Amino acid sequence: MSHPLPYGVFATPDDPRPRTGVAVGDRVLDLPATVAALDPSFAPVVAGPSLDALLAAGPSVWAALRAALTGWVDAEAPVVWATDPSMRLPFTVADYVDFYASEQHATTIGRIFRPDQEPLTPNWRHLPIGYHGRAGTVVVSGTEIVRPSGQRRGPDGPVFGPSQRLDIEVELGYVVGTPSRLGEPVPLDRFAEHVFGVCLVNDWSARDIQAWEYVPLGPFLGKSFATSVSPWVVPLAAFDHARVPAPERTEALLPYLDDAETEPWGLDIRFEVRLNGHLISEPVFGGMYWTGPQMLAHLTVNGASLRTGDLYASGTVSGGSPGSLIELTWNGRDPLTLPDGTTRTFLADGDEVVISATAPGPGGSVINLGSVIGRIS
Amino acid sequence: MSHPLPYGVFATPDDPRPRTGVAVGDRVLDLPATVAALDPSFAPVVAGPSLDALLAAGPSVWAALRAALTGWVDAEAPVVWATDPSMRLPFTVADYVDFYASEQHATTIGRIFRPDQEPLTPNWRHLPIGYHGRAGTVVVSGTEIVRPSGQRRGPDGPVFGPSQRLDIEVELGYVVGTPSRLGEPVPLDRFAEHVFGVCLVNDWSARDIQAWEYVPLGPFLGKSFATSVSPWVVPLAAFDHARVPAPERTEALLPYLDDAETEPWGLDIRFEVRLNGHLISEPVFGGMYWTGPQMLAHLTVNGASLRTGDLYASGTVSGGSPGSLIELTWNGRDPLTLPDGTTRTFLADGDEVVISATAPGPGGSVINLGSVIGRIS
Repeated sequence: MSHPLPYGVFATPDDPRPRTGVAVGDRVLDLPATVAALDPSFAPVVAGPSLDALLAAGPSVWAALRAALTGWVDAEAPVVWATDPSMRLPFTVADYVDFYASEQHATTIGRIFRPDQEPLTPNWRHLPIGYHGRAGTVVVSGTEIVRPSGQRRGPDGPVFGPSQRLDIEVELGYVVGTPSRLGEPVPLDRFAEHVFGVCLVNDWSARDIQAWEYVPLGPFLGKSFATSVSPWVVPLAAFDHARVPAPERTEALLPYLDDAETEPWGLDIRFEVRLNGHLISEPVFGGMYWTGPQMLAHLTVNGASLRTGDLYASGTVSGGSPGSLIELTWNGRDPLTLPDGTTRTFLADGDEVVISATAPGPGGSVINLGSVIGRIS
Repeated sequence: MSHPLPYGVFATPDDPRPRTGVAVGDRVLDLPATVAALDPSFAPVVAGPSLDALLAAGPSVWAALRAALTGWVDAEAPVVWATDPSMRLPFTVADYVDFYASEQHATTIGRIFRPDQEPLTPNWRHLPIGYHGRAGTVVVSGTEIVRPSGQRRGPDGPVFGPSQRLDIEVELGYVVGTPSRLGEPVPLDRFAEHVFGVCLVNDWSARDIQAWEYVPLGPFLGKSFATSVSPWVVPLAAFDHARVPAPERTEALLPYLDDAETEPWGLDIRFEVRLNGHLISEPVFGGMYWTGPQMLAHLTVNGASLRTGDLYASGTVSGGSPGSLIELTWNGRDPLTLPDGTTRTFLADGDEVVISATAPGPGGSVINLGSVIGRIS
């Protein structure tokens, strides 16, 4: 039987050392303890306080460990289950890149911020626009988010204070395992050799800080205060039944981005976004204009090298329904009314945001990608 | 006597393992071997293949090691000199941020790219504009630079190919030693507790790729292919005689950036830029609009944390004379003629760029910051 087998890092009350694990249903399999008992040849790649060694081990080891785990779970072999695990950051983030791959999101943001212009910039349909974010402030789900202070526009020049437009961005993150060499691009068809899997990302955004700072060099402090990721990295191999074609592109693509002849790498992942427990949006990833392989091919086409632990995120997913409050409230003009009668434009102190996601698995099963949770303080 | 004592990492033909060293005149002092002989209490902070442990050790250790080294050199103690050292990347780059702190550079770039607008964007005098670059492609001086390929504007939409406008950017880089905590800004007066020293940076830039990609999220592939740094990190403590006041600001600064009452942290560093051996520019760092402490205070004011090995660069230094070819040639309109009769707008294959710098030391001495070298292939 096929299991999704998401990987993460956990600690327990009995043993606070972070170590690697695999989610099986509601339980967490202790990887070092399990392979020590059942196949010590895997010990080096599951050792340590992070998934880094496994990520670096490459596709043949990923496949071998997956096959072994599947066999052990199906055979009810004496694997070791973690008792009362709490999750940690799953890998050391090398470089963090954030893309802007949803046509719906980019169009709405363009209409809000540049109402006098075409919503999509002329480059948008020709390349997956992206920029580097701050790797050092990527935090695991559950980490409290301190509301950032910064400069924003005031009536007589900039004013300083806590952000008044703190927002979420619902994203999918791609986690790089195998590094590449400086000067050598990674073409579309080598995506699965380098990318290990995906996680959920909430790219917290202070819209007022961002709006004042971002011309001409892009977002900086409006984003760099925190980016939350789910504790689970779901391997690409889990998504064989969730692959969907990419949408038709309205502009011809340059050869390094042309995926007409490649495998379909759209992913039928469905998000749910809850604010203080209330479902406020259900973005759909399947129709994203740019796919994971295209983002990777673009990221490296100039010769930029990959390192184990590189994380690149899709940008806000706004297919079906929007993945940010700025879209849901049209930049605060149309507040949301929650079932408890309160209203929201942007996030209030104490608000808790939970982003979860699922995808179709084999035989009508469901792949649970877990959730990424953050509370504003 | 005061010595600048720049720190770096070297290997030798006899022992290829990278290890830490200190430049004393033209020689390189082998740090692990020297402290083993003269004061083993320093062994942990000079151990390993990088300066990371020393950077993390913090200001009291930095001062103690500097005092010990100064004493040993002055007393002609039996320190260990490296034989035929070759230099390596001096530290593990955590996050890389690039600022835009030279008024002369930002003004000229504004005039070239946005000739119909005010050259400086409205935010420029209110905050040090910056963005995150790619930490994984920071390379040490001497690393060959592979000309990047990418998309650029063509007459009928974008075309793909090797960059035709490959440029340099002469910058100073600040190297963070002591980390900070998420959610806790680093104010101006705590700069020297966190920043260990400075290095030279050549932020290679593909202007044609950058021009097509950078709206709305900033530079990405036009920069991420490579950033070269000098092998030597010169500690802040070396610059006591090179401190100069920051220039007068023409807009009142918000309190977290207001340095009127702080120590002067402008640095009287003078660069020389050589293209194939010919001196083409001599940018002066002293008059930069934004100082190192201001850049750090801004970078962290939203609560973003620092890690050991964070590198933030000043942006192109164009005081006195420009630190980039795009400025020197007005975006290629006015080619440079080199003494050998050849002309250049942007870099040709095989070109070698050497950026070196000096600053005043005590008693008329000169601090040599070394050089950052790169050849285009």
